[in-house]
Amino acid sequence: MRGVYLEAGVLQVRDDLPMLSPREGEALVRVHTAGICATDIELLRGYVPGFRGIPGHEFVGTVAAHPDLAWVGRRVVGEITIACGECAMCRRGLRKHCLQRRVLGLRGHDGAFAEYLTLPAENLHPVPDEISDEVAVFTEPLAAALQVLETGAIGPADRVLVLGDGKLGLLVAQAVALAGSETFVLGHHPERWHILRGRGIIPMHDPGGLQGLADVVIECTGRPEGIQEALRLVRPQGAVILKSTFAGVHPLNLSEAVVKEARLIGSRCGPFAPALRLLARRQVEVEALIEAVYPLTQAEEAFARAGRRGALKVLLRITCV
Amino acid sequence: MRGVYLEAGVLQVRDDLPMLSPREGEALVRVHTAGICATDIELLRGYVPGFRGIPGHEFVGTVAAHPDLAWVGRRVVGEITIACGECAMCRRGLRKHCLQRRVLGLRGHDGAFAEYLTLPAENLHPVPDEISDEVAVFTEPLAAALQVLETGAIGPADRVLVLGDGKLGLLVAQAVALAGSETFVLGHHPERWHILRGRGIIPMHDPGGLQGLADVVIECTGRPEGIQEALRLVRPQGAVILKSTFAGVHPLNLSEAVVKEARLIGSRCGPFAPALRLLARRQVEVEALIEAVYPLTQAEEAFARAGRRGALKVLLRITCV
Repeated sequence: MRGVYLEAGVLQVRDDLPMLSPREGEALVRVHTAGICATDIELLRGYVPGFRGIPGHEFVGTVAAHPDLAWVGRRVVGEITIACGECAMCRRGLRKHCLQRRVLGLRGHDGAFAEYLTLPAENLHPVPDEISDEVAVFTEPLAAALQVLETGAIGPADRVLVLGDGKLGLLVAQAVALAGSETFVLGHHPERWHILRGRGIIPMHDPGGLQGLADVVIECTGRPEGIQEALRLVRPQGAVILKSTFAGVHPLNLSEAVVKEARLIGSRCGPFAPALRLLARRQVEVEALIEAVYPLTQAEEAFARAGRRGALKVLLRITCV
Repeated sequence: MRGVYLEAGVLQVRDDLPMLSPREGEALVRVHTAGICATDIELLRGYVPGFRGIPGHEFVGTVAAHPDLAWVGRRVVGEITIACGECAMCRRGLRKHCLQRRVLGLRGHDGAFAEYLTLPAENLHPVPDEISDEVAVFTEPLAAALQVLETGAIGPADRVLVLGDGKLGLLVAQAVALAGSETFVLGHHPERWHILRGRGIIPMHDPGGLQGLADVVIECTGRPEGIQEALRLVRPQGAVILKSTFAGVHPLNLSEAVVKEARLIGSRCGPFAPALRLLARRQVEVEALIEAVYPLTQAEEAFARAGRRGALKVLLRITCV
């Protein structure tokens, strides 16, 4: 089959990838469209040492094969973690943190930048008809954005400052604002701010009077320096939510967290069901976040475009529907 | 008066320090004994840029003057933050995080390494007779240790791993164990472990099976590398409590916090009242943590001793009782 193959930091579009054989319980999914995530760019830069395989974990597709025929032909999106169901974390109900986990396109399981992928049926969510492919492909990143609300750190009375008006920041700010918080976005792309203003979110170039007084700061800059900035901006005993992952180590002074008694809370993948509900109700704007759509054959150009600083979402059209 | 003066990183014992004049509401306290804290050593190393004055914030003394004569002659310990009472944080009840705060021996207010200090009477706590000076001087560090229990991150069913068997780690582990948690200490001073074993705490050289499975890890190593180690050891969605402050920036990879969805929680000063209760009830062992007692005139030697790696608590005898 055709797909993108990444090995030793080199990305290639290949026509000779072996067809996949689903394991027990897995569905074979024909991929329509996939999104390039910042994590995919970090993958190219060595975020997962020794990674070799097909990347990609944001997708929408159609089930091509599954023993339960009710699945076949359904349009689906899929959660990316494949849990063992037996380890200490799975037994605690933390399947996302399974100690033996495989992760679509990231760890031990080929991903979405190819004509087909496999996933356990329990990972799949049918996509309502009113959600187009271009919108459905945002289910995974919107779910990750919604995960900030699962930290328990954000209340509707809080002043929440999102750092960054990139694709992650724009999704996170919308999720936070829907939950009722007074929401600010610190960014440098005023051409995008209409998306925010239309939803009651306050974009700004400068934190001004919020300096040291934000109840919650959500780090979505994609830059390691963003963490230090977040610590400066949060109020004493406030929360900093970390969404970005980076390859390597970076200089940081965490004494400010100790003196302020701030909380830094890591946040990763999130719940698909509410993401699909919000997309079906059109309560989150995602189409304005699409920067470009490339065919699979131009994946290298697509990655270059997605890796440019300030790029919005770049999609790969994998197969024709 | 006689005292220790720190300026531009140079420490001197001086006999010509001007006598203090208490501000309104402040008591004049004659200091008996003061403890040298890791923060004082960091202060010497530049932790508070431009610091100039008398350091020291762990003390026991006797009130020498106060308009309310009921205070005079009482033996006291004192909370170190002097709040303005009017800023946004004070109005929220977060006086410890007052935006205009002065801090005894650390910020804008001379400290305890001198014959006298001043503090608002509202900061003072009378010391019960059954607590000796050598024990009472541990009130501030024990309060800071107890503050880990104020984070809400530690439950009695949790497995808590304390990193470091220095003076901070030994206090924190005792506080955590008293609250019922299964408590482990990772350290390299087996000669101190009898203090732990006698209280049901499990000391160890190697985390072994706890690797990645500790519900809470408390960083008390005093080394910046301790934070990365804590992130490795904590379980997914667990908590890392940060107690140490360091001057400067240090390399760190926080991606592990994002992937694990761990919480890093800064923790600073704590409540004096429970610390005094535990000391009066002899439920926390502190005398075994005293490494040496020096007279004020030998403060330079005392600082050198306190700054040695692995040093336990070094006390300064300031005045004769």
